[in-house]
Amino acid sequence: MMRIEGGVTAPKGFRASGVAAGIKPGTTKKDCALIVSDVPASVAGVFTTNVFKAPPVKWDEAVCARGTARGIFANSGNANAATGDQGYADVRATAEQVARGLGVAAEQVYVLSTGVIGVPLPMDRIAAGVKGCLESLSATGSGDAALAIMTTDTAPKEKAVEISLCKGSARIGAIAKGSGMIAPNMATMFCIITTDAAVELRALAGLLRRAADVSFNQMCIDNDMSTSDSVICLANGASGVPMLEPGTDDFAEFGVALINVCQEMAKALVRDGEGATKFVEIVVTGTANDQEAKRIARAIAMSQLCKTAFFGQDPNWGRIACAAGYAGVAFDPESASIWIDDVQVMSGGMPARYEEAAAAACMRKPEFCIRVNVGDGPGTSVFWTSDLSHKYVEINADYRT
Amino acid sequence: MMRIEGGVTAPKGFRASGVAAGIKPGTTKKDCALIVSDVPASVAGVFTTNVFKAPPVKWDEAVCARGTARGIFANSGNANAATGDQGYADVRATAEQVARGLGVAAEQVYVLSTGVIGVPLPMDRIAAGVKGCLESLSATGSGDAALAIMTTDTAPKEKAVEISLCKGSARIGAIAKGSGMIAPNMATMFCIITTDAAVELRALAGLLRRAADVSFNQMCIDNDMSTSDSVICLANGASGVPMLEPGTDDFAEFGVALINVCQEMAKALVRDGEGATKFVEIVVTGTANDQEAKRIARAIAMSQLCKTAFFGQDPNWGRIACAAGYAGVAFDPESASIWIDDVQVMSGGMPARYEEAAAAACMRKPEFCIRVNVGDGPGTSVFWTSDLSHKYVEINADYRT
Repeated sequence: MMRIEGGVTAPKGFRASGVAAGIKPGTTKKDCALIVSDVPASVAGVFTTNVFKAPPVKWDEAVCARGTARGIFANSGNANAATGDQGYADVRATAEQVARGLGVAAEQVYVLSTGVIGVPLPMDRIAAGVKGCLESLSATGSGDAALAIMTTDTAPKEKAVEISLCKGSARIGAIAKGSGMIAPNMATMFCIITTDAAVELRALAGLLRRAADVSFNQMCIDNDMSTSDSVICLANGASGVPMLEPGTDDFAEFGVALINVCQEMAKALVRDGEGATKFVEIVVTGTANDQEAKRIARAIAMSQLCKTAFFGQDPNWGRIACAAGYAGVAFDPESASIWIDDVQVMSGGMPARYEEAAAAACMRKPEFCIRVNVGDGPGTSVFWTSDLSHKYVEINADYRT
Repeated sequence: MMRIEGGVTAPKGFRASGVAAGIKPGTTKKDCALIVSDVPASVAGVFTTNVFKAPPVKWDEAVCARGTARGIFANSGNANAATGDQGYADVRATAEQVARGLGVAAEQVYVLSTGVIGVPLPMDRIAAGVKGCLESLSATGSGDAALAIMTTDTAPKEKAVEISLCKGSARIGAIAKGSGMIAPNMATMFCIITTDAAVELRALAGLLRRAADVSFNQMCIDNDMSTSDSVICLANGASGVPMLEPGTDDFAEFGVALINVCQEMAKALVRDGEGATKFVEIVVTGTANDQEAKRIARAIAMSQLCKTAFFGQDPNWGRIACAAGYAGVAFDPESASIWIDDVQVMSGGMPARYEEAAAAACMRKPEFCIRVNVGDGPGTSVFWTSDLSHKYVEINADYRT
C-alpha cells in the first residue's frame, strides 16, 4: 500500500469540483461539492442512527439500497435537518438537478448536507451551486470538494492510497469533514470514499461497515451524535482489475487499505476537533471481550473531567481510573494499571512509583497514549479523542449548528 | 411541611462540628466535620456504583449493613481513593479515633472523604481534625460541618424541614457538597441526612433509595460518576413520635419530606455546579415508560453541545432534538415537540412558529426549563443540569481531583 496524492479523484474514472454558492452565510467560502464517477459505481454507505435523521440521510439510504450510483452532491452551511416533508422534497429536487446535468436518473445521485439545523435549504443558491459544480468538474477537483464540505473544520481532509493486486493496481481516495458533534456511531461528519477497484455490492457493504467500526466508530470529540453523519463509498471498477473476490489475497489487501484510509480520516477529524489541542489514543486491554474494552475506552474518551485534564496537561490518572470504573464493566480494581505513554502511573489500583515530571512531559506533547489494563482477559479496544478546551466552549456557545 | 433553620442539627438529639486541620493544602479552611446522634440511630445509605469505590465507601456500606450508627466523620481535601489496603486501614483508624471519643464501637462511625485521588490520607492531620471536631460538637454546629465538607463548592448547602404527624412533629435536616464529577447514579457528592423520626431499617432504606432516585440520580453537572459518592441518613427517633409504619399517612408524609429535602439538596448542587451560570430543568414526556423518558432527558442534560448552547444563551433547539434522537429510544420524530419555558420552538419534528427573541429571552434567565414531548405515551422524567462554561474548563484543567 502506497500513499499517493489526489484524494477522491486519485482513483481512475472520478471527477470532482467545489464552488461557493452563498449557502454559508456571510462568507465567500466554497460550500457546494460534486463527486462523479464516469460509469455507474457499486455503492455502500454507513449512516447516523439518530432518530432525527435528516432528509438527505433518508434519501441516501434509499440510493444505497438500489446498489449503484453516479454522483454525490454535498453542501455545507445548511444541514437540511428537522425540515420535514419540504426538506425531503428539496433533497429530491437537488438530486434531480444534478442528475439532469449528468444525464442520469435522480436515484443515481447522493445528496449530503451539513450545517445549521431547522432552516429550509435555500434552493436558489443550491441551484447555482449545482450548476457551478457541474461546469467545473475535473480529474484534479478533489481539493476543491474537500474545501467545500468544511464547516468548523480548520483544514481540509484528503487521503489516497494505491494498492498492488495480482492483476494490476487499484486506488482508494477519500475526503472527510468534522468537526463537532463527533461521537461513536457517527457524528456531524461525512466521509466520501472512491475506488477504481471492482467490488461486489454485499462484499463492499461488509468491508465498509467493518472499516467504519474501527475508525469513525472509535473516535469522539464531544459526546453528540449528529443527524447527518454519512460515510459513502463508490467503487467504479475503472482500474480494469477483475472483480475482487472474498477470500482472496487481493480482497484482503483491499480491506486493509480501506481500513487504513478510514482510520487516517478519523484521526484527521479528531486532530481537527473543535478547539482540540491534543490527540489522545486510549487503549484498553484485559477485559473479557472487545465490547467491554470499548465501553471503558469510550467512557474515558467522553469524560469531561479526563478531557479537561488532557487540556490542562495534568497527569490526573485518578480521573481516568474513575471513568473506567463507571463504564459499566465489572473488573477487579486491584488488577488495574494505567500508563501515560510509557510512564506507568497506576499499578494494582494504586499509585505506581513514577516521576510526576515524566508523566507531565508526556502530556505536554500534542499526541499521547493512555493505556489501561484491567485484567488478563483477551478483550482490547482503541479509541481516539481530543481534549476539552476553552476554544471548544467558545466555538459552541456561539456557533449555531 | 415547614422549612426551618438548622441543617443536620435541626432534628433533636444531633450535634455537629467542623474544624480546619490542614488537609486541604495551602488554606486554613475547615476540612473536617463530625455529626453525632446522642443515641444509636437507624441508618440507610446509597453509594457510588463505581468499580473503584474508595475505601471509605466500602467501610460505610458495612456500617449500613449493621443497621445502626452514632456518628459520621467527613473530611475534604483528600478522597482516600485508589489507596488500597492502606486506605482501608486509614478509614478504620479514623473511625476508631472518633469512636473512642464518643465511647462507642468503631463500627458505629461512618467515614466520608472527598478531594484528591491516589494520595494517602495524612493521618496526623486527620487525628487533629477528629480531636478538634470532638471538642467542638454543638447543637448548632450544622453550618460548620456544611462548610467543612466543601471542595470546589462556592457555598455551603444546608436544609431542614419540620413535618406534622399524628402524635407530634418530626424534623429532617441535611447538608451536602458537590460540585464536579456529578452524574446520574451519584457523583463526587455527599449528602448527610438526619432525622429525629423513628423509622424501621428496611423502610428507611426503601425511602432513601426512592428519594435518591428522584433527586441525586436525576441531575448532572459533568458526565463523571465519582468513586466516593454517598448519601447517608440517620434516624434517631429523638422526636418521641412513635415508629413510622409503612402504609400510614405519617409514613407517607415523611417520605414526601425526605424527597423534598433530597431534591432541594440536588438542585443546590446543580446550581453550584463547577462553573455553572445556568440551572436547567429538562422535562421529557410522551415515551412508553419513565425509563425511556429518563434516557432522553439524560442525553440532553449530558450533551456538551446542549450545555454550551445553554452557556451561550442560544435557543439552539436543533441540538436538543439531536440529543433526544441519539438517546437510544425509538419514537416518531414527526410527533416530537420542544419548548423553552413557554415558547414552543419545535413542533412535529420541524421548527415551530416562534419569535427568536422570545426564546432567547428565556435562556437569558439564570434558570429555565426545556420541555420535550415525543408522543402520547405515559412516560415522563425530570432531569436537572447546568451549563458548560469557560469557568468549568478553567476549574478542571487546573484542579487536581
